[in-house]
Amino acid sequence: MYKMKTKKVSDTYTLKTELVLPNDTNTLGNLMGGKLLHWMDIASAISAQRASNRTVVTVSVDFVEFKSAIPLGAAVLLEAKVTRTFTSSMEVRIDVAYENLQTGTRTESNTAYYSFVAVDQSGRPIPVTTVIPETEMEKAEYEEAYQRRELRLLLAGRIKPNEAKYVKKMFE
Amino acid sequence: MYKMKTKKVSDTYTLKTELVLPNDTNTLGNLMGGKLLHWMDIASAISAQRASNRTVVTVSVDFVEFKSAIPLGAAVLLEAKVTRTFTSSMEVRIDVAYENLQTGTRTESNTAYYSFVAVDQSGRPIPVTTVIPETEMEKAEYEEAYQRRELRLLLAGRIKPNEAKYVKKMFE
Amino acid sequence: MYKMKTKKVSDTYTLKTELVLPNDTNTLGNLMGGKLLHWMDIASAISAQRASNRTVVTVSVDFVEFKSAIPLGAAVLLEAKVTRTFTSSMEVRIDVAYENLQTGTRTESNTAYYSFVAVDQSGRPIPVTTVIPETEMEKAEYEEAYQRRELRLLLAGRIKPNEAKYVKKMFE
Amino acid sequence: MYKMKTKKVSDTYTLKTELVLPNDTNTLGNLMGGKLLHWMDIASAISAQRASNRTVVTVSVDFVEFKSAIPLGAAVLLEAKVTRTFTSSMEVRIDVAYENLQTGTRTESNTAYYSFVAVDQSGRPIPVTTVIPETEMEKAEYEEAYQRRELRLLLAGRIKPNEAKYVKKMFE
Amino acid sequence: MYKMKTKKVSDTYTLKTELVLPNDTNTLGNLMGGKLLHWMDIASAISAQRASNRTVVTVSVDFVEFKSAIPLGAAVLLEAKVTRTFTSSMEVRIDVAYENLQTGTRTESNTAYYSFVAVDQSGRPIPVTTVIPETEMEKAEYEEAYQRRELRLLLAGRIKPNEAKYVKKMFE
Amino acid sequence: MYKMKTKKVSDTYTLKTELVLPNDTNTLGNLMGGKLLHWMDIASAISAQRASNRTVVTVSVDFVEFKSAIPLGAAVLLEAKVTRTFTSSMEVRIDVAYENLQTGTRTESNTAYYSFVAVDQSGRPIPVTTVIPETEMEKAEYEEAYQRRELRLLLAGRIKPNEAKYVKKMFE
Repeated sequence: MYKMKTKKVSDTYTLKTELVLPNDTNTLGNLMGGKLLHWMDIASAISAQRASNRTVVTVSVDFVEFKSAIPLGAAVLLEAKVTRTFTSSMEVRIDVAYENLQTGTRTESNTAYYSFVAVDQSGRPIPVTTVIPETEMEKAEYEEAYQRRELRLLLAGRIKPNEAKYVKKMFE
Repeated sequence: MYKMKTKKVSDTYTLKTELVLPNDTNTLGNLMGGKLLHWMDIASAISAQRASNRTVVTVSVDFVEFKSAIPLGAAVLLEAKVTRTFTSSMEVRIDVAYENLQTGTRTESNTAYYSFVAVDQSGRPIPVTTVIPETEMEKAEYEEAYQRRELRLLLAGRIKPNEAKYVKKMFE
Repeated sequence: MYKMKTKKVSDTYTLKTELVLPNDTNTLGNLMGGKLLHWMDIASAISAQRASNRTVVTVSVDFVEFKSAIPLGAAVLLEAKVTRTFTSSMEVRIDVAYENLQTGTRTESNTAYYSFVAVDQSGRPIPVTTVIPETEMEKAEYEEAYQRRELRLLLAGRIKPNEAKYVKKMFE
Repeated sequence: MYKMKTKKVSDTYTLKTELVLPNDTNTLGNLMGGKLLHWMDIASAISAQRASNRTVVTVSVDFVEFKSAIPLGAAVLLEAKVTRTFTSSMEVRIDVAYENLQTGTRTESNTAYYSFVAVDQSGRPIPVTTVIPETEMEKAEYEEAYQRRELRLLLAGRIKPNEAKYVKKMFE
Repeated sequence: MYKMKTKKVSDTYTLKTELVLPNDTNTLGNLMGGKLLHWMDIASAISAQRASNRTVVTVSVDFVEFKSAIPLGAAVLLEAKVTRTFTSSMEVRIDVAYENLQTGTRTESNTAYYSFVAVDQSGRPIPVTTVIPETEMEKAEYEEAYQRRELRLLLAGRIKPNEAKYVKKMFE
Repeated sequence: MYKMKTKKVSDTYTLKTELVLPNDTNTLGNLMGGKLLHWMDIASAISAQRASNRTVVTVSVDFVEFKSAIPLGAAVLLEAKVTRTFTSSMEVRIDVAYENLQTGTRTESNTAYYSFVAVDQSGRPIPVTTVIPETEMEKAEYEEAYQRRELRLLLAGRIKPNEAKYVKKMFE
């Protein structure tokens, strides 16, 4: 089968809708953060596989803030899409919202960035198809992905503060 | 909160994406039919709740045929929408497809109709908001929902063959 | 091991008893329809495997109606048996009842017919052992299985209304 | 509702059939002992609830020996019945066998005795209906239940060796 | 890698902390005995694997008594360690306590002994590394392990009462 | 009950040991990142509850990097402890390692910081007991917790770059 050289961001779009069940909740009857992080991982892994058509491995998760409690019985909407590809890695943005099914009200919960690497059957990294941004928003995400990656390398101790030129510029 | 009198079919649209994990599979490594029926129930219940903003109870499932085996590691796409509302019941159509994430190939798996009734906190049926079809396809589904309901009543023994006028017409 | 040429319906009888736990229930505290469909699939698959001694794949589920709500803490009784075998497929009837363990009251919930096909390790259909009905009830089920199969073929679009002679006769 | 004063052992008979799925197995692909102990607890709790029509709490499990490995894909048959009731406690015997669904061979796996106490909504013990043995086998189990209970009290440190007259007699 | 000939009891120490979630509880909101037996099996299997560096199979569980109800939301602490090794089998002691996270109160729940056998890839028993007790308590457990094993053989019908010299001595 | 005014870091120490089962793994047979994030959330929530004796809610997760693949059948060790308390929030550090049970080799996997807020039964934040560091390492973690919190506020958009004095200093 012929493999196309590039894909569009919209080709990687994934929507996963979940219903909050008893075992997903804490003693206050709200969705546990860890369960949500698990669903976010699955939704974003599907998005990364749609970009690469490869087995993917989660390599990192950026800072995640949970803004509001999601109650038992609510529907959770997880939207993921690849923002930018690097040699064999991909950054995926996931937006989480929840819907009170008794009122229809939809509330934003949180946004996160998961990074994946595409691997072959032995688990070794392999190059991925380039994902092309099209809309203004996708292009902005694409640009900022580079800065987020720099912050990630800094936090992982792979580069030094003086090498982090984008992060450094924020403070000038 | 003010409750609108009608909703559109598109307001009830639900997309649930799942990843086939080891415990979802039979000894051939393919998704078990029962697990898929379970996911279909959750996706269509969310759709029925979006239409009614009520707790809903599954009352029946029409004939379901599984056309192809869905392998471990595939993404399963479940799309549900309410086709027609009756006094306190709703018919939901679910279309299931799966995607081989190594090739990107998407295959239709099956279509089904689940029926739900909206209930109050004591479990008693209550009237639901009317759902209005807009596109040609939605209008066709709306029309045929009446015939499917007649077949359902016939199969449940609630009406007699000579009362099933739509079904009867098929054989003339 | 020598393989007997026929089996009796009673050789395929399967009883699965389940306890309704929190995660199996909806927000009213009743068993979700999808979970029940999943248990029905497992019980009937065991019955079909007892008939064929083969890996089996669910190919279809006939119309299922859920007559009553099954509460948290109830015992669910799923009884399955093969009603008739065709070349490589089998029809299984499942009767579901539940028992209120505080009172001992047993209530019928629903009956359904699941169809399975026996497959080899490559997933290709293979002939199955013939299952012989013995009691009057088993013989009646055996006869009607043919008619249900015709309805199934009609609903799946495999035959045309005028070819469905049993279903057609119902309306005369 | 009128409550009968006694029940028969056969009124408490429970059969639970399970299918061994991937997550139930260890790295050799055989059912984990802990999962089986969990299923045995559910089957025997249903039996104890059928005897008492009360909420029941597991108070002890006698020595359990696992005689053979149960492979992935096998059907597990758990048969439970109350052997004897004491003031507010009940002894349940569970016999476990498994069936290779490819050959139809059934193999005995193990037998165990679980003890339950019936409790009210505050968790306090309450008297239970007396269960009457009928067959020779049930009568033998009923007699021996008294001795097993003595061994249980001895192992739990509730009585001293010289008070354990049945156990003591074994060694004379 | 060089394999040491002996290990210490403390090398096999395993602590597993669990949180009681809704699906782990009965209708009184307390942890089900069967779920606890499952966790105990996993904790003790890890301990036996740490002793043997082999795949292990649960062969038996001694008498277990559940002294108190563990409520929803509590933390459960499972501590396991190998008490003594025999040719290819190992005895593991598990102490279970739970902690009320609202008060910090810790309560002992129960103690049990699970036995495991180390097996090769075909499931055949293989000799295990000897585990050496060091503290006074470990030495006492080591000594008593021999007596518990005798009782186990007696209960399993592998030896006769007159061969059970340690158990017999208890009654003199 | 009298509530002590302070606690030590060591009072909040939590060790959770898990076994990687089939359903926890991806198609390469390695633990999925999302499942690990879920376990990390439970281990750190228990630690935060030990510090506060309150219901806690996950509010954020700092950058997490997964350094190595954890295979099916490995034991995962999750160690959590509260590093510093603020008015009603707490920072928890979790160190994850895994152990190859066939060789006994232990490998560091990753470290993360989860933040929790203690809430009353209505979900409103309430003050927590102060946690006191004792060892040199705990004191260092305590000091750096303030800087990590500043970075968190910056990433969450709650403070501006010029207000982030610790982060700013890194680049001078």
